[in-house]
Amino acid sequence: MEKRHQVVILGGGFGGLTAARSLRRDPVDVTLIDRRNFHLFQPLLYQVATGSLSPANIAAPLREILKHQKNTRVLLGECSGIDVGGRRVRLKDGDVPYDTLIVATGARHSYFGHDDWGAFAPGLKTVEDATLMRRRIFLAFEAAERESDPDKERAWLTFAIVGAGPTGVELAGALSEIAHDTLKHDFRRIDPSQARILLIEAADRVLPPYAPDLSASAARALERLDVRVMTGTTVTGVDDDSVTIQAGGRTEVLSTRTVLWAAGVRASSLGKVLADATGCPIDRSGRLIVEPDLTLKGHPEIVVIGDLANFAHQGGRPLPGVAQVAIQQGRYAASIIRARLQGGSVRPFSAFQYRDRGNMATIGRAAAVVELPWLRFSGLMAWLAWLFVHLLNIVAFQNRLLVLVQWAWSYLTFNRSARLITGDNPFPLDL
Amino acid sequence: MEKRHQVVILGGGFGGLTAARSLRRDPVDVTLIDRRNFHLFQPLLYQVATGSLSPANIAAPLREILKHQKNTRVLLGECSGIDVGGRRVRLKDGDVPYDTLIVATGARHSYFGHDDWGAFAPGLKTVEDATLMRRRIFLAFEAAERESDPDKERAWLTFAIVGAGPTGVELAGALSEIAHDTLKHDFRRIDPSQARILLIEAADRVLPPYAPDLSASAARALERLDVRVMTGTTVTGVDDDSVTIQAGGRTEVLSTRTVLWAAGVRASSLGKVLADATGCPIDRSGRLIVEPDLTLKGHPEIVVIGDLANFAHQGGRPLPGVAQVAIQQGRYAASIIRARLQGGSVRPFSAFQYRDRGNMATIGRAAAVVELPWLRFSGLMAWLAWLFVHLLNIVAFQNRLLVLVQWAWSYLTFNRSARLITGDNPFPLDL
Repeated sequence: MEKRHQVVILGGGFGGLTAARSLRRDPVDVTLIDRRNFHLFQPLLYQVATGSLSPANIAAPLREILKHQKNTRVLLGECSGIDVGGRRVRLKDGDVPYDTLIVATGARHSYFGHDDWGAFAPGLKTVEDATLMRRRIFLAFEAAERESDPDKERAWLTFAIVGAGPTGVELAGALSEIAHDTLKHDFRRIDPSQARILLIEAADRVLPPYAPDLSASAARALERLDVRVMTGTTVTGVDDDSVTIQAGGRTEVLSTRTVLWAAGVRASSLGKVLADATGCPIDRSGRLIVEPDLTLKGHPEIVVIGDLANFAHQGGRPLPGVAQVAIQQGRYAASIIRARLQGGSVRPFSAFQYRDRGNMATIGRAAAVVELPWLRFSGLMAWLAWLFVHLLNIVAFQNRLLVLVQWAWSYLTFNRSARLITGDNPFPLDL
Repeated sequence: MEKRHQVVILGGGFGGLTAARSLRRDPVDVTLIDRRNFHLFQPLLYQVATGSLSPANIAAPLREILKHQKNTRVLLGECSGIDVGGRRVRLKDGDVPYDTLIVATGARHSYFGHDDWGAFAPGLKTVEDATLMRRRIFLAFEAAERESDPDKERAWLTFAIVGAGPTGVELAGALSEIAHDTLKHDFRRIDPSQARILLIEAADRVLPPYAPDLSASAARALERLDVRVMTGTTVTGVDDDSVTIQAGGRTEVLSTRTVLWAAGVRASSLGKVLADATGCPIDRSGRLIVEPDLTLKGHPEIVVIGDLANFAHQGGRPLPGVAQVAIQQGRYAASIIRARLQGGSVRPFSAFQYRDRGNMATIGRAAAVVELPWLRFSGLMAWLAWLFVHLLNIVAFQNRLLVLVQWAWSYLTFNRSARLITGDNPFPLDL
């Protein structure tokens, strides 16, 4: 029996999983390697962080998704290096050879070189990040209830969100609902609606990649929700009980015990590993600068997709780190492999073309902004579109049902039943 | 205004929460103190440990449950001591005075004096316990898939459950379904149905507190599920890759990488604290030996309920550590306070009387045993009764709906979508 073409995919996020599924009918052996046993629907991670959904509702076991795809195996493992010459991926307990390697290991949040801020300002990329953020948010209200010093109480009730991209805007909207509605009757001493929610953004408007009129309507919606929008403002320091900001040349220190990080991202460390091994350049965020066909220069057998790839061959600016880009690149990676197998050898392939299907973000209850190639709108209709698109795109059918039940319930009752404070040491009020 | 009677309740489990709710119309001020911000429906914790349900599905925020109960406040806090003479509960950041104290801090699992076994054999009392156990179970299959040595693979596929009470029996049944059905098509190298599931029990039958014929039908159901039931067998050692057992004078070492602990419990450390402060005796498990009215001798203002209480005034043997006992004792504690307030002073009160409403346990899919005061039955009808009773008793209505959806889905598809391997270091195959 002839040995089949071996495809190894690193990472089971949107890009890697799409590539694997796209190859289901091709005469190749696929090995999907991830450190996690599940695919995570990251666009809803902020709902875990704010107690609306449980982690399992937005996750689907990779083995379950791929169980009937006979040409594919899943390995739970961590890649410790790549032997580019020998075409082998190194795992802790052995090597996996490849003919084509698809690298889709994504990005983590980053602190613009200030890694020490991480201890005070949790980001939001993994399930653990989300449960930590959830714990920080709900512990802050508990701590405020127990605080006798008014200044300290105020610091516990001040929430600073850094970054007003979709995640930051969505976090701010959810926090406003928590403060004004969910916790309305929960406390006896504090009034949760007195919480201050600050949304800090270095650019001159919220949702900077969107059209200016959508940014403006998002800002108006946020202000109706009592969120203080601070654009043109840079964060220059974060510590245990404050965030330092700079705006128009003036520096200010804001007392807060809860800083939520929704700003920078940094590509997975495999970017650096591959750059060193192949001589491929990386950008400041650690992303590999890929060829028009998403391969590395001189290495047509290595395809890089998703948040790890800096693809700037369309419009001059790198494509954004969103699910749509990763999904389309995953499909494209599969199509390169298919075409090469049919052609019998590695051959030039037409460049990757991103088709922007649009962007959306929710801003609390019954409000959202939607940007399609041919239409922009905001408000209730945008929110319904957001609900519909997100529900449809959750991977497992059961999860669609569970998410729908929980959304309907939260909408009617304002309750967030998944607001558990968990962790090995669940009650360190001094955090 | 006259100062109202101050009731402080330590612990928001079945006993403490029932006591708090029972006092909702009484002219008292209630303070419920818990280290957690949620009430946990422990009887379904094994379903979290085996990936059927998410933690939030069996938890309900204490503040949410009590938000409209105006005479009650909830404090998130950890009791560091009790000033019995001054009638004050000590918290880290201050004291809370009481007129009546209800202590309902429950129990943890324990290793019969072998605390070092804890590192290898996780127990099942908290949400963190359940997610750790879940991780251990599903990582074991992953590790087996990656193992090239057949003996080591076999050790990864051997699961030893210590203790055949309801939790042990339910874990064994769920593990069998995971091995035979859930993971059926998930792996490419191993056959998960080759997993060995050992249920080790020191008594001469499973479910020892139940009637012998129910134990027998439970054992038959377990054997149909391919569970090896080892009664009359004592565990004398647990380490990283084996469990040592003793049966009929013979000692045997079984290779296994996964030991799940469903055996002993130890009362919360407040038992010892109160024993030292009041001279009240404690039993070997650390439970306080209470008076017929659940108070401590010489301290009618301290009521101890639930797993922390050793109540042996009815039938001579201590009541079992089950939800029903705690709930009835919580109601009784509230009624003592009410009667005393109406009587104007502390007065003798009729003894607590436990009404045994019955016991039940599931043994995998569509099988259970039910023991009512006037009837015993097993099989499908028992399973339906089990489902019904558990669904009805879950605290929040939304959770009933979510659990029902997930049970129906698992029943139809064998899927366990909550089988996430999570934790700060999610992939240490050497555990």
